[in-house]
Formats: sequence, structure tokens, C-alpha cells
Amino acid sequence: MACSNPKQVCIIGSGNWGSAIARIVGSNALRSKNFDERVTMYVYEEMFNGKKLTEIINETHENVKYLPGRKLPPNVVAVPDVVEAAKDADVLIFVVPHQFIRTLCATLLGKIKSTAIALSLIKGFDRAEGGGIDLISHIITRHLKIPCSVLMGANLANEVADEMFCETTIGCKDATAGPLLREIIQTNYFRVVVVDDEDTVEVCGALKNIVACGAGFVDGLGLGDNTKAAVIRLGLMEMVKFVDVFYPGGKLATFFESCGVADLITTCYGGRNRKVSEAFVRTGKSIKELEDEMLNGQKLQGPYTAEEVSYMLKIKGMEEQFPLFTAIHKICTGQLTPKDFIDCIRNHPEHMVKTCGVCLSLPQ
Amino acid sequence: MACSNPKQVCIIGSGNWGSAIARIVGSNALRSKNFDERVTMYVYEEMFNGKKLTEIINETHENVKYLPGRKLPPNVVAVPDVVEAAKDADVLIFVVPHQFIRTLCATLLGKIKSTAIALSLIKGFDRAEGGGIDLISHIITRHLKIPCSVLMGANLANEVADEMFCETTIGCKDATAGPLLREIIQTNYFRVVVVDDEDTVEVCGALKNIVACGAGFVDGLGLGDNTKAAVIRLGLMEMVKFVDVFYPGGKLATFFESCGVADLITTCYGGRNRKVSEAFVRTGKSIKELEDEMLNGQKLQGPYTAEEVSYMLKIKGMEEQFPLFTAIHKICTGQLTPKDFIDCIRNHPEHMVKTCGVCLSLPQ
Repeated sequence: MACSNPKQVCIIGSGNWGSAIARIVGSNALRSKNFDERVTMYVYEEMFNGKKLTEIINETHENVKYLPGRKLPPNVVAVPDVVEAAKDADVLIFVVPHQFIRTLCATLLGKIKSTAIALSLIKGFDRAEGGGIDLISHIITRHLKIPCSVLMGANLANEVADEMFCETTIGCKDATAGPLLREIIQTNYFRVVVVDDEDTVEVCGALKNIVACGAGFVDGLGLGDNTKAAVIRLGLMEMVKFVDVFYPGGKLATFFESCGVADLITTCYGGRNRKVSEAFVRTGKSIKELEDEMLNGQKLQGPYTAEEVSYMLKIKGMEEQFPLFTAIHKICTGQLTPKDFIDCIRNHPEHMVKTCGVCLSLPQ
Repeated sequence: MACSNPKQVCIIGSGNWGSAIARIVGSNALRSKNFDERVTMYVYEEMFNGKKLTEIINETHENVKYLPGRKLPPNVVAVPDVVEAAKDADVLIFVVPHQFIRTLCATLLGKIKSTAIALSLIKGFDRAEGGGIDLISHIITRHLKIPCSVLMGANLANEVADEMFCETTIGCKDATAGPLLREIIQTNYFRVVVVDDEDTVEVCGALKNIVACGAGFVDGLGLGDNTKAAVIRLGLMEMVKFVDVFYPGGKLATFFESCGVADLITTCYGGRNRKVSEAFVRTGKSIKELEDEMLNGQKLQGPYTAEEVSYMLKIKGMEEQFPLFTAIHKICTGQLTPKDFIDCIRNHPEHMVKTCGVCLSLPQ
């Protein structure tokens, strides 16, 4: 489908995941008449072997620091000034660590097209003022006054960069924006499902990290496959319930998408949250010590998210309805020992008698 | 709750899983006034070190052949005659290999209480006369003229015998039988959720083995975590769709139970179907050869189930709507090579545009 007014795309962020998605977006922009060929990529300027990273990228078409060994399409242009990169964009793809999002929005406010749309690939919650949770897409919409969709899924960046087959989920409420976003993202190896249930998609991307800590505890305690499957499933049920309580209107079917069950599985079997949590049980060290040792001091997402979630549950007096999330938080912070974990979920609300269910009727 | 008329329980089968469940049922029967203390267990008589297996079990309270190292409660009595074992039972728990079920039913017909209820722990389909699928619980109900519930979940027998925490799902339509079955099965480490969606529970227990073959292909092809997650998810979606088409009235929520997503995960990460299918890709040998080498000639469930399912899909002209199941069958039978697998699911119906979804409303 030709388009008289090709859309400009800007990728804000150039880490491992940002660079992997830039390969996809760049080649789709080349292929489709609906998009301007030139894709800008905001790169936080740093020196690499005595040279500016943006210059290296624009000369060699490779992000040698964050995605070495994989070429970017030549139409992806690295720009060190985020306003310069974003000012003409119709589609802004956010893929930066979540702690930078507020500053970025402040910088961009009033400097972007008022008709632009955003797509957030950022996983994790931000802390709301006064405590609790703020969704990244809500922050973007509130600060920049543009709609923000989200993209989540079982998408390890290096495997995406290697063009291995996978799926992803775009949560987008807008029936016009959805197909546009799909067109710039989908390839024959990166398969997109668009659902309108934005908040659920985003919440899944954060809560799965809590569950992965529980899976890591099970591994650390040597409890076997049955127990691990039960912990993952109970975690999934608490994810569903969390959406039901705090983001009402979500859909059960969304949890069957890549952002739900698929990403949860991958995170609970691979992934750093599982790994560090296993080490937490086996070594007896604190999460902080393990972050220093195993992650070069980077914060582990799961324990952080568990803390925010527990804060919200406490305020609502709902900790007992989320025993798995609550136990994981208490174990991470030393209020319980890992050995207490299973006893906390033995009488899970899920094991109470159920009398009714949801009718099976799938999206067509 | 006392009961003037305590129920008698008979376990039909004494393999690895049957013996593990006998430990649970035996100790629950001792504890609860609703059940007769004496639990009979039908044991196919065989010699073990020159002695009858039933005698060894009744003297040592250990199934030395199929669950060595774990004691059975002394109130579980091994009986070599199935009619003798079953004739006074109010609850018949079936846990034999599925190929024996029709012969067993023929033997038991007219010899059991007409008020008895059955619980099937048997995984896998049987072949219907004329081709296609027959559910084991339906066979039991049809032949013995008693209602048959089912129990499925992420329940590796040895881990259950070791009393490691796990969950299971009982599918039971009858509001009176459900609590009774829960009482004889649930312990503080073996947690039961009862749902009324019997057929879905049972179908999950069979179809997961097809998906596990796909997961094994991915492992054998070295395709990574993203692809594996996508294959498992697409498999789950085909399981949902299969129920929707062939067992209408099923509930989406049932797939979130232990019999659904939890058992699927365990089977796709551990499990013999995954393992043999990985070897199938790596060695180039046939499934038959690998069954001989790796399983002492036992049949692998996944390829067999895939064949039955494909037969039904072909008759309905629905193969294109189940590309994953269909591809797995064709690969197992040499009509396609493992390398073709991903190309068969690249344009999965799940990746088509969706416009509506199921509302989130969980069973309370």
C-alpha cells in the first residue's frame, strides 16, 4: 500500500534491545512505502576505543558496544541529540532503561510533533510519586501528551538480532495505529500479534520478573520440576488477579499471548532474575551483594518490582490474596527465609473451591 | 465430618504413578472418617526375585518393582484379581497404561457397584473405532456405565512420592463427587483444584505430548529460548482451539490450571517426548528406532497422539488451522524434515489480525 505521506520513525535508545529492534525497523522502513527510509536512532554519546559511538555506528553500521557482530541497515542513522533525533518523527519507539524515562520526556516535551505516536519497549514499572506503580506508557502519555502503545514478549535481544523465529505482542488501543506499528515491527522471523489490551501487556512484562525470582528459589532449594511448574502457574494466576484488581477491564486471553505465558516461561527457565535468585538461596548472600557480583552493580528487576507491588497490596490490605508475590518480597528483603517459601503458598487462594469459570471463546 | 457409610476406594494399577497415588490415597483414607481404612490396589501379578509382587507389597509395604525406596501405608492392600479388588469399591481410581483400559472394563463389567464413581489418571487418547480419538474417561463411562472424572497435572510420579509440593487438577462435573475426590486426593503437598470442565482437563493431558515433540525439535535444531517459547505458546493455542472445535463448551480458564499450562511447561522442558524428539533431530534416526534405543521399545505418546489428531483434522479439512500439530505429525512420519518445522508455523493463524478478545473474569 503506497502512502503519500510516509511516516518518520525514531528509535530512542540504542542498547542491546534497541539495536536489535533497529535492525528490524530499519529494514522494514526500507521495504515499505508507508515509511520514510531514514530512521533516526538516539544514541547516548560515549567514547569507544577513543572514538564517538555515534560516529562508529554511522560509519560501520554496527553498534560495536551493545550489539557487536550484527550490522544495522545503513538507513538507520545514529543521532546523539535526542531532540534532533525525535523532532520530525511520527512514530517514537522508546527503548531505554526505565529510570531515564522521566528525564527524557522532560527534554522532549514541546519539541515533538503533536500528532506523533509512541511505542514503549521498556519493561518494568516506575515508582509513582507517593509510592506504588506507574506504567511507563502512562508516564510517556502524561508527559508528552501523545498516545503510547507497548511491545512485550519472549524476545531475548541477541536471539532477535540473530533472526531466530519468535513472537511478540503489541498492546495498542488505536485501530489505526495498530496496523502501522505491526508493519514497522513484523518480519518473517519476528511475528506480531496486536491486542487492544495495552495495560495488561505492559503489566505482564514487569510482574513476570517477580515470578522468576520464585522459580529461582525453587531451583536453589532443589525442589524439582513439579514444584517449579506450580510456582510458575501460581505466579501467572497472581498476575491475572493483579490486573483484575488494579487494571480492571483486562482480558484473560492476553495472558496467552507472547507477552504473557511465553515470556513468563522464558524468564523462569533462563533469565537473570531466576539465576540471581537461585544464587541467593545457595550462597546466603544478599540481593545487593549478588547484584554487585553477578550484575556489575545493576539493579535486579524482580525484587524491585516485588517491593512496589507489595507496597500496593499492603495499602489495599490484599497481601493474603497474593501470597506468592508477598512471600517473594519478604524473602528478598530478609523478612522470611527461602525455606519458608513453599509454606507461604501451600494454602493459596487458588486451591480453594471454585464454582464457576470463564467461558471458552477465543479471539478470531 | 463423620460419615455413617464410609466409602471404599480401589486403585486399579500399581505402576510408578499408581504407587505414588496409593501413598496419598492410603494415608487420606486412614485420616478421614468418610473413607474405609482399607484401600485395595489391583496389582498385575508378576514375579520379582522369585516372589510374587503382591506378596512382597503386602509384607513389606513397598512396591519394590515400580516405586522402590518409598513405603506404602499398611492399609493399602495389593490384590492380584481386579474383580476382587474392585467389587466393593465406591471409588475406582484407574491408573493403568491406556492400551489396557478396554480389556479391564470388559473384565469389570457387571462386577462392580452400580453406584460407584471412577477417577481416571490415565494420560493419552485411545483410538476410536473407525479412527480418531476416544477419551479414556468416555470409554470407562460407556463400558462400565458409571461416571468418570479425571485427574491431570504437572505430577512427575517420583517427585509426588517424595512429597514435593505440587498441584493437580481434577475435572469433575458432579458437585457431590468433586469434594469427595478432592478429600481422598489432597494433601498439604499435593494441592487439588477441582473444575467441572472434565473433557478439557483430559484433552490437555494428551495434547501436551504433541507440543513437547515440537519443543524437542527446537532443542534439536538449536533454535534458542525465544523460538521454544513461541512453539510452546502456539502449541497451547492449538490445544485451546482443538477443545473449541472437538469438545465445545470447554473453558479458557481450565488451560490456566495445573493440567494446562503447568503440565505443558514441565513436559516441554523435561519429559521423554521432548528428549526423544531432540534425539530424532540430532541423530536422524526414526522414532521407532529411538523408541527401541531410548525407551526399551515402549511407544512414545506424542507422535502417536499427533497421528490420531491429524487424522481428525484431515477429516474436518482443518489441517491449516492447526499448522503446528500437523507439522509435528508430518515430521515424525518423515513427510517433512525437522528443518521445515519453523517455516510451517511462520504464518500461523494466531499471527493474523485479531479484533476481539475474551473478557477477564476469573473464577472466584
